[in-house]
Amino acid sequence: MDKYEKVTELARRRGFLWPAFELYGGAAGFYDYGPLGGPLKRRIEDTWRKFFVIEEGFAEIEAPTIGVEGVFQASGHLSGFSDPLTSCGECKEIYRADHLIKHIVEVPDALSNEEIFNIIKDNEIYCPECGGNLSNVYEFNLMFKTMIGPGNKMPGYLRPETAQGMFINFPRLLRYFRDTLPFAAVQIGKSFRNEISPRQGVIRLREFTQAEAEIFINPANKTHPKSSEVKEIRVKFYSQAAQERGEPEDMTFGEAVDCGIIAHQVLAYYVARTYQFLLAVGISPNLMRFRQHKSDEMAHYAADCWDAEVFLDRLGWIEIVGIADRTDFDLKAHMALSKINLKVFVPFNKPVKRQKLMVKPDMKALGPMFKGKAKAIADALKALNPEDLRGDRIKINIDGEIVELDPSLVSYGIVEEEVRGEEIIPHVIEPSFGIDRIIYAAMDHAYYEDTVEGETRVVLRFKPAVAPIEVAILPLMDREDLVAPAEKISDELRSLGLRIDYDTSGSIGRRYRRNDEVGTPYCVTVDYETLEAGTITIRDRDSMKQVRARTDELAKKLKALFEGSIQFQEAGVPINANEQ
Amino acid sequence: MDKYEKVTELARRRGFLWPAFELYGGAAGFYDYGPLGGPLKRRIEDTWRKFFVIEEGFAEIEAPTIGVEGVFQASGHLSGFSDPLTSCGECKEIYRADHLIKHIVEVPDALSNEEIFNIIKDNEIYCPECGGNLSNVYEFNLMFKTMIGPGNKMPGYLRPETAQGMFINFPRLLRYFRDTLPFAAVQIGKSFRNEISPRQGVIRLREFTQAEAEIFINPANKTHPKSSEVKEIRVKFYSQAAQERGEPEDMTFGEAVDCGIIAHQVLAYYVARTYQFLLAVGISPNLMRFRQHKSDEMAHYAADCWDAEVFLDRLGWIEIVGIADRTDFDLKAHMALSKINLKVFVPFNKPVKRQKLMVKPDMKALGPMFKGKAKAIADALKALNPEDLRGDRIKINIDGEIVELDPSLVSYGIVEEEVRGEEIIPHVIEPSFGIDRIIYAAMDHAYYEDTVEGETRVVLRFKPAVAPIEVAILPLMDREDLVAPAEKISDELRSLGLRIDYDTSGSIGRRYRRNDEVGTPYCVTVDYETLEAGTITIRDRDSMKQVRARTDELAKKLKALFEGSIQFQEAGVPINANEQ
Repeated sequence: MDKYEKVTELARRRGFLWPAFELYGGAAGFYDYGPLGGPLKRRIEDTWRKFFVIEEGFAEIEAPTIGVEGVFQASGHLSGFSDPLTSCGECKEIYRADHLIKHIVEVPDALSNEEIFNIIKDNEIYCPECGGNLSNVYEFNLMFKTMIGPGNKMPGYLRPETAQGMFINFPRLLRYFRDTLPFAAVQIGKSFRNEISPRQGVIRLREFTQAEAEIFINPANKTHPKSSEVKEIRVKFYSQAAQERGEPEDMTFGEAVDCGIIAHQVLAYYVARTYQFLLAVGISPNLMRFRQHKSDEMAHYAADCWDAEVFLDRLGWIEIVGIADRTDFDLKAHMALSKINLKVFVPFNKPVKRQKLMVKPDMKALGPMFKGKAKAIADALKALNPEDLRGDRIKINIDGEIVELDPSLVSYGIVEEEVRGEEIIPHVIEPSFGIDRIIYAAMDHAYYEDTVEGETRVVLRFKPAVAPIEVAILPLMDREDLVAPAEKISDELRSLGLRIDYDTSGSIGRRYRRNDEVGTPYCVTVDYETLEAGTITIRDRDSMKQVRARTDELAKKLKALFEGSIQFQEAGVPINANEQ
Repeated sequence: MDKYEKVTELARRRGFLWPAFELYGGAAGFYDYGPLGGPLKRRIEDTWRKFFVIEEGFAEIEAPTIGVEGVFQASGHLSGFSDPLTSCGECKEIYRADHLIKHIVEVPDALSNEEIFNIIKDNEIYCPECGGNLSNVYEFNLMFKTMIGPGNKMPGYLRPETAQGMFINFPRLLRYFRDTLPFAAVQIGKSFRNEISPRQGVIRLREFTQAEAEIFINPANKTHPKSSEVKEIRVKFYSQAAQERGEPEDMTFGEAVDCGIIAHQVLAYYVARTYQFLLAVGISPNLMRFRQHKSDEMAHYAADCWDAEVFLDRLGWIEIVGIADRTDFDLKAHMALSKINLKVFVPFNKPVKRQKLMVKPDMKALGPMFKGKAKAIADALKALNPEDLRGDRIKINIDGEIVELDPSLVSYGIVEEEVRGEEIIPHVIEPSFGIDRIIYAAMDHAYYEDTVEGETRVVLRFKPAVAPIEVAILPLMDREDLVAPAEKISDELRSLGLRIDYDTSGSIGRRYRRNDEVGTPYCVTVDYETLEAGTITIRDRDSMKQVRARTDELAKKLKALFEGSIQFQEAGVPINANEQ
């Protein structure tokens, strides 16, 4: 078994991750988070929330997962979010057409459906299952479609990303933030992609969890007030140039901004915060790098884009976060389709004087001449340039009809006006996190094996902040005199908000191993000294060392251990314990 | 404006709840949680998690929101989860057929579609919009349907409840809990109901959030070890009998169990925990009651069922939680369809001796006589009763073929065996919480108006544990010398995990009012004494009193206030402040 197999076997056996719907034959691309996976997921999401909602002050919203057509028409998902398919005329099996020609064209993304079909024909490619003829190549939209309400009047789509919820709420968010840039909103929630053939466990799912932030900034100011707080952090940058050379380069965020490898301070700041978050949930810094999108993979509107990639056994380098400067693309698209103004008025530091043409139609003359049309003519005159107002006759276009006027009907001149600011479309910085992939990576990077008394010990070295069980309470034996105080301790610690597992079954050594395997940082054993001397033992997962502490000080000691304010050996009196 | 209008207006204006997709014309039954609604929702969910996951030790899982057909075939949603519709032949408008005859038949639930249609015809009911003829009455399934993968091979449904995720994972959950009853699993997540005409804001949504627990117990033991901890709690019980009388009765949970009003201890314990949870999120005990389902509204399989109801302005008594003893209905249904054994082996306290018929076919004779069929014949013989084995000839049925045998080919006798336990199908206790309704109720019950210096002050008296903003940091004026220390204080408190709002705009009095209106428990003002004496003021939302405390003790004081370990007046030196 390689590490990939070991981690996925452990994840399944112990209740982290289960392929869904096993009772009814299963369905590819759907997973259940089990009794340990659920809490691991919640704690990773909570850590994300601590970084981006609480510390950065971003607004956490929750929009529906079903969306109406307009949203995805504007976002481009209705027309562009699809894969090319071909079906077998004989057995009706359906294939990704681009995958069938991968041995001929390495990157088939740029090919049209017709071109792909021609390659299939020219290379005599047939159905891999039955050898039948393959159909024309057609597009399959990857959004799950449904109908809202009865009848077929209102199609709905399961959102392919959480981002649109922030974009379409932009006017309300702007009001909430008192019309001032920069501000940001986030969502943590489900997204959906109707993949043709999902694979690789939770790496490519049909239903997955994203945590996305949309940070709206003034394009004229891409500096960040806290950039000095992260500028000394050193990571592996795999820039476009570094990818040409085939070798990432170690440098600080300050250096990366200064030498222009990363587009600007705001992007650099959030890439750095991403790094800090990934460390906090247990991603190994040695198995992580930041890769810049190459120019041919970057979206045409993006100013810059970086992926956080982690190295995973068997799977190689996998993207788990993308951080992009999407410029004004999204807001512009929604403005165009919804016809609602999504611009922000940005005041200048001090008002600016500007010269302005002032056109004054002679309404007393125009009124009687044109009656009902006079207002439209006056408005058209006001919109003219000086050169249109000169000459013998002024020509204006009123709903397609050309009206000629004598210049005496209008006067004009240059006036000076005070301009207090301008309307701009904000740019968007978008850090987008794939929570399921991060969970899997946190398990892979936490997985260790060592040898204890001749036997292999498996241990998940989870950060205490994400461990699904924080403390296991273990009566030395399953006897009433030990069980009663152990249950009392469990209840007390639970009422303090600690995630407790209480376990009486099997030898104490076996229970330690079971807890190591699921990453429980501390095991507390209740034994006869608990009854006689009012003490318990605390065992540390990683060192397997044990200390003895007073039962009535246990909560305080555990709290200090989790806060990191004491070292393990300070939690009690060291004891020599032989692990079984 | 009545209170309902005031609360919904406030919810919309300040960013708690927004009707979704406003940019694209909206869609009934979908809401966004805005920058204040999002955190309120998360904190209410976290309080639920504290009660049921952490304190009760229930396993939190997360199953997909899309489900495959088998799941909803077994659950009955595919066939039974529907509303009767009728459409207008002229304008094509679609109506709930049962709603159109409500003035004729008060409770049309029991009528068949044909009966409803006859009532429509006989009473000359036409399309309310255009007067056109109405179509036959047909069933509309309330599950959103989609297709998984390309083609039409695999339908998928958005789950109408989270509960099925726990049921179909029963075998794995049982293994996780080491094959021992009782145990429980929960989910907090989205569910969907394709309502015909959703209304009443977040009370009836097409996409909503549930928190559900499935507690699997041994039907032979419906006692609860912690029932003594809740037995003194007194609530309003609105039992079947009390509903006949039209008046709820105040009693304790102990009394309700003792006099048989509530079916058993387990159900009573979780109704009591529900009550404690609802108090913790700010539901008023005076506007809450527990109503038992009447016999004609209770599901046929349910042993007992209670709703937590809250009184809401304009809407009246609304169900926000249901707690049911669903017996073995769900597991039996999944066993029947999936053919997978969902029984649990429950060991007896001590093994029992039982007499058992032992049938011993003479294989030496049967083998040569029947060759390949011998094994099937032996198995059929072992399944016979003593009376079948007596007589001249033994007749057995092998796949429809009758085989006759001489009694000498088989011997039998009664033996005594030790039975260590038995296989049972667990019963399920299901507390099911409608999170959106609870959120709305928490806002309604927190809404107060008082008069301060001649003006109406609106205040949401949120429990600090659910308030979307815990502390507002307010520099007295928007000037650099006050802004810099105020930002520093904000950052420090955020790094401790507190939800902070930082606000410099408008007079301090206006900012206090803005924070009262969204339920911020404490406002901290940074003024010139902060610079000169190192102190800030803390203002209490409900009393509007202020104290002055040392800046370097602020975090400690706030922590103590949130923990409830000090009273507000102990947080600093009282000051007389005139609120503007």
